[in-house]
Amino acid sequence: MATNIPTRLYLAEDELPANWYNLRADMREKPEPILHPGTLRPAAAADLEPVFCKEPVKQELDETIRYIPIPPGLLEFYKAYRPAPLIRARFLEKALETPAEIYYKHEGTNTSGSHKLNSAAAQAYYAKEEGLKALTTETGAGQWGSAMAMACAFYGLDLTVYMVKVSSEQKPYRKALIETYGANLIPSPSNTTDAGRKILERDPNTGGSLGCAISEAIETAVKTDKCRYVLGSVLNHVLLHQSIIGQEVKAAFDKYGIKPDIIIGCAGGGSNLGGLISPFMGEKLAGKSNIRFIAVEPASCPSFTRGKYAYDFGDTGKTTPLLKMYTLGNGFIPSANHAGGLRYHGMNSVLSKLHHDGFLEARAEVQTEVFDAAVRFAKIEGILPAPESSHAVKVAIDEALECKRTGEKKTILFGLTGTGYFDMTAYMAYNAKTMSDYIPTDADLERGFATLPDIPRTRRFSL
Amino acid sequence: MATNIPTRLYLAEDELPANWYNLRADMREKPEPILHPGTLRPAAAADLEPVFCKEPVKQELDETIRYIPIPPGLLEFYKAYRPAPLIRARFLEKALETPAEIYYKHEGTNTSGSHKLNSAAAQAYYAKEEGLKALTTETGAGQWGSAMAMACAFYGLDLTVYMVKVSSEQKPYRKALIETYGANLIPSPSNTTDAGRKILERDPNTGGSLGCAISEAIETAVKTDKCRYVLGSVLNHVLLHQSIIGQEVKAAFDKYGIKPDIIIGCAGGGSNLGGLISPFMGEKLAGKSNIRFIAVEPASCPSFTRGKYAYDFGDTGKTTPLLKMYTLGNGFIPSANHAGGLRYHGMNSVLSKLHHDGFLEARAEVQTEVFDAAVRFAKIEGILPAPESSHAVKVAIDEALECKRTGEKKTILFGLTGTGYFDMTAYMAYNAKTMSDYIPTDADLERGFATLPDIPRTRRFSL
Repeated sequence: MATNIPTRLYLAEDELPANWYNLRADMREKPEPILHPGTLRPAAAADLEPVFCKEPVKQELDETIRYIPIPPGLLEFYKAYRPAPLIRARFLEKALETPAEIYYKHEGTNTSGSHKLNSAAAQAYYAKEEGLKALTTETGAGQWGSAMAMACAFYGLDLTVYMVKVSSEQKPYRKALIETYGANLIPSPSNTTDAGRKILERDPNTGGSLGCAISEAIETAVKTDKCRYVLGSVLNHVLLHQSIIGQEVKAAFDKYGIKPDIIIGCAGGGSNLGGLISPFMGEKLAGKSNIRFIAVEPASCPSFTRGKYAYDFGDTGKTTPLLKMYTLGNGFIPSANHAGGLRYHGMNSVLSKLHHDGFLEARAEVQTEVFDAAVRFAKIEGILPAPESSHAVKVAIDEALECKRTGEKKTILFGLTGTGYFDMTAYMAYNAKTMSDYIPTDADLERGFATLPDIPRTRRFSL
Repeated sequence: MATNIPTRLYLAEDELPANWYNLRADMREKPEPILHPGTLRPAAAADLEPVFCKEPVKQELDETIRYIPIPPGLLEFYKAYRPAPLIRARFLEKALETPAEIYYKHEGTNTSGSHKLNSAAAQAYYAKEEGLKALTTETGAGQWGSAMAMACAFYGLDLTVYMVKVSSEQKPYRKALIETYGANLIPSPSNTTDAGRKILERDPNTGGSLGCAISEAIETAVKTDKCRYVLGSVLNHVLLHQSIIGQEVKAAFDKYGIKPDIIIGCAGGGSNLGGLISPFMGEKLAGKSNIRFIAVEPASCPSFTRGKYAYDFGDTGKTTPLLKMYTLGNGFIPSANHAGGLRYHGMNSVLSKLHHDGFLEARAEVQTEVFDAAVRFAKIEGILPAPESSHAVKVAIDEALECKRTGEKKTILFGLTGTGYFDMTAYMAYNAKTMSDYIPTDADLERGFATLPDIPRTRRFSL
């Protein structure tokens, strides 16, 4: 174990990693390709460019280039809020009386309150470079929408945000934040799109879902001049941008001679988890380390732990390309739990492949226990975590207590993806003890799986 | 001008200042003493100890010790969130096309969202050391209440917070945050104290004031066993704790060879402003620099710019010792503007003395223009400032634009005391253009001045 480690392991500005890391370049077994939903053949750049910005499409499909330089015009923006603090949880260690060393990477110090800004800034930067005027997107918890609003304000782009209706009601301040940065916010499902109208016809009282908001945002993007759609998670280019998180941790750990044994991250679409673990997973795949990686998801939306590894649409409207992933089915609408950022039916393809191949563990947690851990962490470490991040806090505490039981002095790292400052409605429910744990029944899951596309086995294997 | 200055001028953990700086030790003309309200003689420690914790009382009265060591058990807590970022506002400079260099000290990265935690942690630490079980306090904007809730959770003390009623209604999430950290929150005026009941009788619909909430908190503290009252601003020991802000800036500026020409801070009770300017003011008083210091207050609560320099009570209930300060009168209740932390009738004695003696300028700003500056800053620099901090942002922009006019390449520093994440109601009002500028009439001020205590001139000079 290293000595003389400060509480906060800051990197200096000139130690900020200059490259993203593309994990796929180091995977011998590549993730399954994205398929065009019509032809069922691997999607080409030309298939994706009507919807997405050009450079991100290139990044989405590239599986060979290991390090991708962060453009200077973006790096400048990163420097306004990065490197993000990497903190030794000394108080938590002491309170738990654990022999484990616990570190957390705190991505919540920027105004959007989460790691989402890392990809939002990148995507807005590329859109501006490409000469676009506007972007559309969706947001669940509101973190991605806030991040995109900040990024678009900075780079001078118009932005329309479809916000999952239940979130826009639970989080009026998130809505206000997004609007303060100048974005046009529309609760989803809405009457502004065919996709939204269709869902409202079927279920006028729906609280919405990420999958549905995505359909609306894509539809608006393709119908608008000089406009594209941006997504905050699930896709490979988003994970690439988020690799800045893991790159920074790796640089700081190398600087202080720290070697993690367990890395824990919450998993919704996978962007934070993928970004955090990327460089460490690369070493594991190369046989250079034996780190355990743990994805934590809500028991109410358990794609890794109870989903199917299958091709599925990314959205409820079945308009996106097909992704091979752990999924609950594009029609699965999770109960209104308080971790809005973890209410997505699917999971990034790279992470899905890694889980399928046994490199990435997964665990599902119920929200009352997650909030128990969150409040405990807040009182001890002084930072109020986002409900999403609290899933990682819960498992980090569990693993530290396991070390206490066994006496092992492990080094645990977890991703504190964001702060809960805009999630006080959730904490109010927790304080008032009105919070429930929703666990889908097998029948709920079957209804979701019934929405999976029927892809002929022969076609899949002929690719 | 210095070169190779990073965007964020971090100090390493071992560069964190180990001492607070007591500006009074370097003032040849000392501020007027605190008076016992009964005898009108300078208050002694024994007069203050029934209300306040012992060590802070010692610090309150000491005018001779220049550097006061920060206790190790407190420094450990400081290290969890300090040193606070000192940021070069490169994007703002560029957007304003100013030759000025602009820096801001960002105190909003901790969960309480402001600098208040610096003194909250200190006061909770001393209370614990003294063997107390509980504390009471008041909060206006909610920042101090949040900070005390965090500090008491950390050091294991019970806490009752009287929150100015209008703030508790404007900021339900602040209330929830304070409660999540385990404090007992009571909107003020309340029926739990004689002081509260008296005010409610006179005006049942009052939104409350800091002065009134202070009366309630003091009354409860003195009636409760092993309990004391803590205050988050105005008093000298609070400014002493906040000197960590200026000490850090000074250390970073010295490290990079930067010399400020203008230092700007918002002023409510004076804690942030006093803390930020202390070490620089010490140099000015010693004739070693010619820095301009600017206090910015809301036009709706203009103690420096339209108040009287007189002895007054710190609270509406007239229960505190008397302080010589710029004051609008203890009975002055400012209009319900959105900078809850700047709605106090008086001002710290040291700062009042410095203003009276010509060392500290003051300016009053209306809130719509303050919010114009805040939103501009947010879009350019990426951080949504607290309404209070935005007063400093406004004047920093004005001064930078003045440099543009004159061509002078000045170095401007301002205090970004906190973030606006819990102030979204204010931003919603701004976005909806329903925000008004309240400026008290001369008659309003006269009503306030009529509440000033009548202290015989002879008694005052016989001290």
